[in-house]
Amino acid sequence: MLYMIGLGLGDAKDITVKGLEVLRRCSRVYLEAYTSVLTVGKEVLEEFYGRKLILADREEVEQEANNILKDADISDVAFLVVGDPFGATTHSDLILRATKLGIPYRVIHNASIMNAVGCCGLQLYRFGETVSVVFWTDTWRPESFFDKVKKNRQNGVHTLCLLDIKVKEQSLENLIKGRKIYEPPRYMSVNQAAQQLLEIVQNQRIRGEEPVTEETLCVGLARVGAEDQKIAAGTLQQMCTVDLGGPLHSLIITGGSLHPLEMEMLSLFSIPENSSESQSIDGL
Amino acid sequence: MLYMIGLGLGDAKDITVKGLEVLRRCSRVYLEAYTSVLTVGKEVLEEFYGRKLILADREEVEQEANNILKDADISDVAFLVVGDPFGATTHSDLILRATKLGIPYRVIHNASIMNAVGCCGLQLYRFGETVSVVFWTDTWRPESFFDKVKKNRQNGVHTLCLLDIKVKEQSLENLIKGRKIYEPPRYMSVNQAAQQLLEIVQNQRIRGEEPVTEETLCVGLARVGAEDQKIAAGTLQQMCTVDLGGPLHSLIITGGSLHPLEMEMLSLFSIPENSSESQSIDGL
Repeated sequence: MLYMIGLGLGDAKDITVKGLEVLRRCSRVYLEAYTSVLTVGKEVLEEFYGRKLILADREEVEQEANNILKDADISDVAFLVVGDPFGATTHSDLILRATKLGIPYRVIHNASIMNAVGCCGLQLYRFGETVSVVFWTDTWRPESFFDKVKKNRQNGVHTLCLLDIKVKEQSLENLIKGRKIYEPPRYMSVNQAAQQLLEIVQNQRIRGEEPVTEETLCVGLARVGAEDQKIAAGTLQQMCTVDLGGPLHSLIITGGSLHPLEMEMLSLFSIPENSSESQSIDGL
Repeated sequence: MLYMIGLGLGDAKDITVKGLEVLRRCSRVYLEAYTSVLTVGKEVLEEFYGRKLILADREEVEQEANNILKDADISDVAFLVVGDPFGATTHSDLILRATKLGIPYRVIHNASIMNAVGCCGLQLYRFGETVSVVFWTDTWRPESFFDKVKKNRQNGVHTLCLLDIKVKEQSLENLIKGRKIYEPPRYMSVNQAAQQLLEIVQNQRIRGEEPVTEETLCVGLARVGAEDQKIAAGTLQQMCTVDLGGPLHSLIITGGSLHPLEMEMLSLFSIPENSSESQSIDGL
């Protein structure tokens, strides 16, 4: 059996009791290590789970999936995913491969950023399509995702922006020379995302469109589900400077009109006037 | 401290390790019992959690929230919610009340139907606004939610339909006579939802609109996250008769064009030709 087990958000103890019981009896336990991260590293997880974890990077999962699935028809293999196993599309692929090999699978769900963002008070059923914001380079500055943000705004629904993660990336030089030297991991911050968005807003304005402006109400979230979680509600302009601390970050562009309950919840997290500091939540 | 703890979907062991540790040290533990249910009852939860649970119905949570929050400034109180604490808007209200009373709160997230539906293979980021489908009566047959389904279809995104739950409802007669006698709980099935939707589709057609037809591809899901979970992909017409077993059910109206990976995943769950039986997933 292939077990796809969600680890939730936060730390080692955010796994479910069921997930923990299952992984402890599996013959091999893989940790998917490229679509998200917890606030603790592999060693802490290994100690709490009581099992050695095999790190599975994108290359391994996408190109060598058969290694992961080896003998899963006669023994139990666990594939651990930060958040929920269906947060990233790449995991559907693993399930399809298993099914083709006649290997049964089972999913043990957990929280993902897709539902945990509800903690800011914006109502989950009022979210439209989710977008991904990728790191721009000097030569690659995609804006196409912004069409979805515009459509969501027109429909009065919120947009969750998932921010880019670069893990185990090679520099162009190392890539060309075939050197397996990797750059340090990079996680896009709310500040970086907001700055890229502002540039798009300015380009849109030139074309006479203003679906989003510097004043559009946004919510920045950091380390959702962790002890030191931070949430800040303010304008897109404020999101460029608000200090939310370490990764992972997410950004929400609100849909315009808010329900009174949403408004009241967001006010708990509003950025104080004349400050670039976010207000942290007591007790979180 | 007020702890809002998600129980996930499925059974007693779907709580997180963190959630379980926290609830065991709380002085009072409430179980919210009106927006969703697990596959096991209160007694099973009490035995596994090792704590007595106080059932909190809608009346209690909305009108007597102060009872729940009593002494939460000097002791720890847990409020357990099936799924994730932010699946239902009513729980924001409890947090706002706590905050006004100076009581700190903390959220322990878990899977909710909002993210776990990803298990059918439709990609979570391609969902639009979520709708609720309520039980029709002879005199009350609301269709307004269908505007959102239409909008989602126009935008090519999927619609998750949350199906009605009636717990602790009184008959009109008992209500008028002030008798606290409650009807047995009712959970809308995919069949019932599809039948109501077909009636709306026919009404739309009279008006010359056909955003959804009998042939629109839908996905019915039952007991997501439980051992005996069932998923069936087929036309809206097929959803009227497919047998998915006991509650809870959810229905997805697809957005039209599907990603090849979505298509391939859905094919695992397609209803066989000439059959009104859903195909259950091996190993689930």
